[in-house]
Amino acid sequence: MDPQAKKTVLRQVTYGLYAVTAAYGGERGVFTANWLSQASFDPPMMMLSVERESSTLPLIRGSGCFALCPLASHQRELAGALGRPKARAGDKYAALNLPIVETASGCPALADALGYAVCRVETEVEAGDSVVFLAEVIEAAVLQAGEPLGMREAGFRHAG
Amino acid sequence: MDPQAKKTVLRQVTYGLYAVTAAYGGERGVFTANWLSQASFDPPMMMLSVERESSTLPLIRGSGCFALCPLASHQRELAGALGRPKARAGDKYAALNLPIVETASGCPALADALGYAVCRVETEVEAGDSVVFLAEVIEAAVLQAGEPLGMREAGFRHAG
Repeated sequence: MDPQAKKTVLRQVTYGLYAVTAAYGGERGVFTANWLSQASFDPPMMMLSVERESSTLPLIRGSGCFALCPLASHQRELAGALGRPKARAGDKYAALNLPIVETASGCPALADALGYAVCRVETEVEAGDSVVFLAEVIEAAVLQAGEPLGMREAGFRHAG
Repeated sequence: MDPQAKKTVLRQVTYGLYAVTAAYGGERGVFTANWLSQASFDPPMMMLSVERESSTLPLIRGSGCFALCPLASHQRELAGALGRPKARAGDKYAALNLPIVETASGCPALADALGYAVCRVETEVEAGDSVVFLAEVIEAAVLQAGEPLGMREAGFRHAG
C-alpha cells in the first residue's frame, strides 16, 4: 500500500469536533473526539472510537456510558484544550472551569456544548490501536442554538 | 427521552458523502454512505454502518471487502443518484455510466471520486437496524485533486 495515498484519502473524510464525557467511581473525564458517527436509526445508536491510552476509556468501561457533546463553531479553542491528555492537563473540568449538566444517567455533559446525547454502551470491539463502542442513545437535550464545529474549518487534523 | 432533542443533537454531527462499492459473485453494488469514520491509525482501520436492507450488504459480506470513495464537492448530483435503492435504479454502474478502477483486491472503485481506500473486513457487529463493519485499509489511491463533499453543504440529511 502507498502510505502517502492512504493518508491523503483518509484525510478526505469529513469530521466534526465533539467533547466526549464520562464519569465513574468519583473520577470524571472529557476528551475531544472526531472519530464517531451515528450507526443506527432504530434504536438510535452511535459508534465511537477511543484510543487505548485515553484516561477516559476506563470511565466509559466502568460506567457503561458516555455523553456526546457537539461543540459550537466558536469553540475551536475549547476543542484544543479538551484534546490535551489528562496526565498533563489534570482534571480538565476544574482547570478549564467547565460548567456541567448532570444528566439523569449520572454522566456529566458540558453545559457550553450545543447539546448532548447520553449513550449506553452495548458492544465494545477491538480496532487496532483503539476501541470502538457501539452505544444506544438513551437521553438527549438541546442546550443552545448554533452551528456545529467542523474539523476542517477549525484547521485541526486527526485522520490518515 | 425527548425524541425531538435526540433528533436535533444527532443532526449536529458533521458528515461527508462517499460512494461505497463492493463486488461478489459477478454482482457489483454501490451506494451513498455518510455513517463512517476512521477507527484506528495503526493499523489504519475504518468503521462503516450499512443498513440491513442494502443490496450491497451481501456483496461486502461475500467478498469481505469494500472501497470507500470520497466524493468531490461538485458531485452532489452523483451522491443523490447513488443513494437510490438498486431495486428501483437497477445496476447503477450501467445506468449512470460510471467509470471504474479495478483495484488489486478485485473491488471496483469509482474513477470519478477523489480517491479510494479498499478496506478488508475484520469484524461485523450488529447495530440496531444496521450492521457495522470494522475494516483494515489495505490499498489506497488518489485519483484527482479537489475538495471533499460535505453533507451539510450538499443540503442532504441522513441522521437523527
